Amino acid sequence: MAQDLGVPVVLKFGGSSLATAERIRLVAERIAERHRQGDAVVAVVSAQGDTTDDLLDRLHELAPQPPAREVDMLLATGEQQSAALMAATLSTLGVPAVSLTGWQAGIATDRSHRRARIHGIAPQRIRRLLASGRVVVVAGFQGVSEGGDVTTLGRGGSDLTAVALAASLGGTCEIYSDVDGVYTADPRIVPDARRLEAIGYDEMMELAALGAQVLQGRAVESAWQHGVEVHARSTFTDGPGTRVHALAGTERSQPVTGVALDRKVARVLCQQVPDQPGSAARLFGALAEAGINVDIIVQSPSHEGRTDLAFTIADDDATQAEEIARRAVVQIGAGHVSRDADVAKVSVVGAGMLSRPGVASQAFKALADEGINIIAIATSEIKISCLVRREEADLGLRALHRAFQLADA
Amino acid sequence: MAQDLGVPVVLKFGGSSLATAERIRLVAERIAERHRQGDAVVAVVSAQGDTTDDLLDRLHELAPQPPAREVDMLLATGEQQSAALMAATLSTLGVPAVSLTGWQAGIATDRSHRRARIHGIAPQRIRRLLASGRVVVVAGFQGVSEGGDVTTLGRGGSDLTAVALAASLGGTCEIYSDVDGVYTADPRIVPDARRLEAIGYDEMMELAALGAQVLQGRAVESAWQHGVEVHARSTFTDGPGTRVHALAGTERSQPVTGVALDRKVARVLCQQVPDQPGSAARLFGALAEAGINVDIIVQSPSHEGRTDLAFTIADDDATQAEEIARRAVVQIGAGHVSRDADVAKVSVVGAGMLSRPGVASQAFKALADEGINIIAIATSEIKISCLVRREEADLGLRALHRAFQLADA
Repeated sequence: MAQDLGVPVVLKFGGSSLATAERIRLVAERIAERHRQGDAVVAVVSAQGDTTDDLLDRLHELAPQPPAREVDMLLATGEQQSAALMAATLSTLGVPAVSLTGWQAGIATDRSHRRARIHGIAPQRIRRLLASGRVVVVAGFQGVSEGGDVTTLGRGGSDLTAVALAASLGGTCEIYSDVDGVYTADPRIVPDARRLEAIGYDEMMELAALGAQVLQGRAVESAWQHGVEVHARSTFTDGPGTRVHALAGTERSQPVTGVALDRKVARVLCQQVPDQPGSAARLFGALAEAGINVDIIVQSPSHEGRTDLAFTIADDDATQAEEIARRAVVQIGAGHVSRDADVAKVSVVGAGMLSRPGVASQAFKALADEGINIIAIATSEIKISCLVRREEADLGLRALHRAFQLADA
Repeated sequence: MAQDLGVPVVLKFGGSSLATAERIRLVAERIAERHRQGDAVVAVVSAQGDTTDDLLDRLHELAPQPPAREVDMLLATGEQQSAALMAATLSTLGVPAVSLTGWQAGIATDRSHRRARIHGIAPQRIRRLLASGRVVVVAGFQGVSEGGDVTTLGRGGSDLTAVALAASLGGTCEIYSDVDGVYTADPRIVPDARRLEAIGYDEMMELAALGAQVLQGRAVESAWQHGVEVHARSTFTDGPGTRVHALAGTERSQPVTGVALDRKVARVLCQQVPDQPGSAARLFGALAEAGINVDIIVQSPSHEGRTDLAFTIADDDATQAEEIARRAVVQIGAGHVSRDADVAKVSVVGAGMLSRPGVASQAFKALADEGINIIAIATSEIKISCLVRREEADLGLRALHRAFQLADA
């Protein structure tokens, strides 16, 4: 029965690729094709379409603040259903297939419900099944903690499952979605955006963090750590997609690889705060404790012993962040806290900018030429982000795309 | 943290008791009440309302004949969802609760997918959770095989889960449903049917097998084997319900305990079959191999070397049974096979009839007095079943109920 496995391929399909019976059948055909070509195939599936949101709605009706453990127990069923439906559909196509939940696939995580980290994978069962000629369909997004509880890996967790399995099996990873790869910008906003043949892990991580939906940031990080090549492809077309791997310097022909737009940000302003040692530490310590990621921080020069502090966070965290800031400001002594949801972040990403000075000033000029005011700036070694008014964001993104000539290969 | 558990109670709630958010809340209140009274409570839950049928519909659209393993993988999610929703709802009521799947609850089964048998239960995790003051909500209907596959226990399997847990924990078992106990007949057909205070395991098994929906036959059998007292109660009222336990002879005041009607039967007729040794064995051997339960068998006296064979089976098996009979008859030599769906089975059940002769003739007379023709008869030590035309079944059931004065306590 046992055979040489070759290099296993892990194919991951997102929820929208599985939203209807017709799409499940189409994806099953794709998987079957790879199986017939002789590949040892592991398919990782997300929950169908809106399943996860529907389950959360049903849960919140009963329990507005449910225990995270029970949320995971509930949500994990979505991927389990997809996996069973996919394995059954493959069987109907004459392809021997077996579905596995996270615990059955040996995906061990820590105990952090709703955002668990994968500790390790025991791949024996998958290896055995692959060796017996079967396609293995793994429920994405989930694992099991040491205590035997079902855990989930957080938003985009199925990408993480796929990468971790590829790393554990010594295989490659293909992430299928509605789009046929990674683009220099969101084509819905920038019509002449260009698909990238390849992108470096570092740049892809920045793009993912800045709002590109194609791949999940933690998954890219994990792929980088384990040296897993990730291939972003379309479920519905046969295009070449985009390969994500370690790019040598010589492969980076342009200083900038892509631009990104994130509308899901908000800004909290703390005005007239006493400027004393520990003020900022107290505020950002409280935010960190609540698990809120703070992005761009701006502190204005002190004036008469008082200062203004502003920071951006994800939209979803805005209410909580404002509340925490309000409490911190009271403790610090005085000040006025407000929230500004009318902002968006446009960013320029490229590992090449490290060695080419002037990218930042070029970006600022491109925005200024369109009359766009920059509210705040954040930079890293491979990205420049500018906070702008939300209604000017699309215009800004197009200006940046043009300024760096990203439409030209 | 640890405390004396006392006798744990296992409360089982069926799918219709959990069909809406409102009902889940109501059931949660019931469970919370028991917890507050100091009981160590294990709640076993079925899938909500039509969930199981909906999942099967979705599956069959993709895979008309899905592998049984994948059916179990899919269906088990329904109970897992119920369990998570219930545990979260209990938490909202201030009751610490934890949901467990079949494998987490330590329910070990054999490998027979869709109708697995429980091999044993490892109750340590449940005991530990109960000892820490938690309500444990167990997903019914499911277990895990030695190979680590998800299995389901077949129709009414959640009852079986509840009884097995009660046996394993040394506790008692309460089965909650829409009806407030076991009746002498289906009250929708026989208006003066009377709720029974108590019923013996043996009688309850027969009634369950004959179509009474309150309790599942295998669960009653298991309760009998393990000496678990089962209490059938209503989710929505506070009535005393019916206790199912071992009844001493002195507690059986009447020869007949109840009557039952099963409309979901069909009859297959094999006419003019050569009457030679092995004919019947070949036919019924083929049916047994296909896993089809044959109920009443009638073979007419041989005439010119040919005979008629008729048997009843469950409605669901009728098409397959007819097909098998047709093939068998061809092998035997000749004959004509047809199917009759226009039948129903009325039965009289009572352990007391063992010591009181004449019950059978009294039943036949009651039917005859209404002008009802008996197509076939089957008897056991504690039941008499008569196959009648389907449109005469209600009339027959009422006649039997009256003849044995079951409305009078």
